[in-house]
Amino acid sequence: MSVKRCEYNPLLTPADVKPSDPRFKVDGVFNCGVAEYRDEIILLCRVAESVKQEDPNKIEIPIVVNENGQDKIDTVIYDKNVQTEYIYSDSRSVFKLGPGGKKMTANLTSLSHLRTARSRDGIHFEIDDKPSIMPIACEESWGMEDPRITQIGDVYYINYSAVTENGVCVSLIKTTDFETYERMGIIFGPENKDVTIFPEKIGGEYVAFNRPVPFGIGTPSIWIAKSPDLIHWGDQKLFLAASKEDRWDNGRVGGGAVPIRTEKGWLVVYHAADANDRYCLGLYLLDLAHPEKVIASLDMPLMEPETEYEKEGFFGNVVFTCGALLKNENLLIYYGAADDKICRADISLEDIFEMLGV
Amino acid sequence: MSVKRCEYNPLLTPADVKPSDPRFKVDGVFNCGVAEYRDEIILLCRVAESVKQEDPNKIEIPIVVNENGQDKIDTVIYDKNVQTEYIYSDSRSVFKLGPGGKKMTANLTSLSHLRTARSRDGIHFEIDDKPSIMPIACEESWGMEDPRITQIGDVYYINYSAVTENGVCVSLIKTTDFETYERMGIIFGPENKDVTIFPEKIGGEYVAFNRPVPFGIGTPSIWIAKSPDLIHWGDQKLFLAASKEDRWDNGRVGGGAVPIRTEKGWLVVYHAADANDRYCLGLYLLDLAHPEKVIASLDMPLMEPETEYEKEGFFGNVVFTCGALLKNENLLIYYGAADDKICRADISLEDIFEMLGV
Repeated sequence: MSVKRCEYNPLLTPADVKPSDPRFKVDGVFNCGVAEYRDEIILLCRVAESVKQEDPNKIEIPIVVNENGQDKIDTVIYDKNVQTEYIYSDSRSVFKLGPGGKKMTANLTSLSHLRTARSRDGIHFEIDDKPSIMPIACEESWGMEDPRITQIGDVYYINYSAVTENGVCVSLIKTTDFETYERMGIIFGPENKDVTIFPEKIGGEYVAFNRPVPFGIGTPSIWIAKSPDLIHWGDQKLFLAASKEDRWDNGRVGGGAVPIRTEKGWLVVYHAADANDRYCLGLYLLDLAHPEKVIASLDMPLMEPETEYEKEGFFGNVVFTCGALLKNENLLIYYGAADDKICRADISLEDIFEMLGV
Repeated sequence: MSVKRCEYNPLLTPADVKPSDPRFKVDGVFNCGVAEYRDEIILLCRVAESVKQEDPNKIEIPIVVNENGQDKIDTVIYDKNVQTEYIYSDSRSVFKLGPGGKKMTANLTSLSHLRTARSRDGIHFEIDDKPSIMPIACEESWGMEDPRITQIGDVYYINYSAVTENGVCVSLIKTTDFETYERMGIIFGPENKDVTIFPEKIGGEYVAFNRPVPFGIGTPSIWIAKSPDLIHWGDQKLFLAASKEDRWDNGRVGGGAVPIRTEKGWLVVYHAADANDRYCLGLYLLDLAHPEKVIASLDMPLMEPETEYEKEGFFGNVVFTCGALLKNENLLIYYGAADDKICRADISLEDIFEMLGV
């Protein structure tokens, strides 16, 4: 009784993706929002790109800037031999030491945009040649990351991490056709990410998990918030803190797939990492009318990095989901593996309920 | 042309405040919300208390816990000689090193509640013998801090830092008489503080400054948010980041006094600290209809720690305001000095406008 990885994994890799700019290489296609639209399954993928670099002592970093009212890609160049005050050891970020010795992010090494992949069978995906949504300078100069798609009626709401040098916010975009997109702005201020919006109003209000990242007190934890309109959020309550014990979820926890309604409750696949940044997936079943109320949960991971494609990659030892679908009583979990590939794992609802003892 | 400190400063000191519990001593009475109610000026003061301690090698810390459905004060005891894995050098907090060597707050050294002081002349204050609002275990087990009062019609809205081991949130309470108080819950999730709500709707929405404290990217900066109902907030935009230069405001910036309407714009006294945690007050004048639009600002502090009572105290080199009043064309700034006393400084509106060049 466990998830069954798709035999075609990984379904999408950087080799499948055309760079958005001839100067770029694709570092990763991962962490995708999932939706059903007409007769297709759509993955809205995070595509991370960096500048092709000949000199291993240099890092050239793409960012979005506004010049004369026009957004364009610019680059920042670090020379590791000269700029020795920076820390280059993390594949994802360049750090510097700020006031008081605080480790601060100077830049991300890559720039992420969102790109659409489509499939009829949910396994073989065709990914677009071009970005579907490019980051804008004013709110996403460092990129758009980790989209989740919540379908409410005929409208698909896409929330994602909107990153600038001023912080990581969560912003919202809506679409009805995955061709034209309308920006709705920032819905959670910094530092927040991993928002999953429930697909219907509950008790007259929209509900969302969100994952603040506090500086002084507390750990990166899952909070639950409510909204009358999807734009303004309040009534925050702690849902789940990182474990205080030496286990798989003692580093950070955060939203994963958008919650899925079942007859027995809301099915919530979330992520948790330990202190060594090993990312697993966990499982909750929540009361349909009171989603802050837990019916059942797994003490162990539903899924953890096991295969080579999950252990090795841009950032290894990661399974991370932004969306799943319930089809024919099976849960199809689309997930990012090692921060550079998209994979799928399935598990039947029957097995899930049995694991949860409900 | 500068602020004039009141000759009776400090107006309130710990010696003026009766402990809320015979086991406690008062460490500070400071950072007070300000309101006019009937013919009195009201200060809703942050009162910080700690447990009287005979043994200098021990720290006993008060927290609020819920036991059998009843909130009560409990204590946590640290023995510095035994628990050497903790860091005791900051007067405000006990720290520990968490996963990855991250410095984490294990406890605050004191527990703060809110207490009312009243005056007819705005200088001589009588402070209540008992707390006006005590922290509750579920949302404020580590205390209530730094209240701001926004009067809208006959209702006084009090927002404050609501602190637990899970983070620093901002919560809201309302009153019409400063005798009975109604809790409205968390309005900004962690980590956030220093919220100042404008005293009227602008463009059909409530507006507030808030100060997220991000972990990974960005500095503690002032953001501006909007709300239909004072409970749900969204549309966050960066208003002011900490300076990147070596100056008085390069550590953190945050809301101070609740904005005050003048004929020339919203008058905003905010706080800024440098990398050494020296807290000053700064000044902005904002467009009445578009408060995110700056009309004028001071490049230098409006006020900085100069007197002995501002330089020496529980945490020295701090001037910090949560509220000011405009009376007879004079701005009366009530402020916390060195995190343990309440003081006042005045400046005429005429001088302010001249300093701002408007």
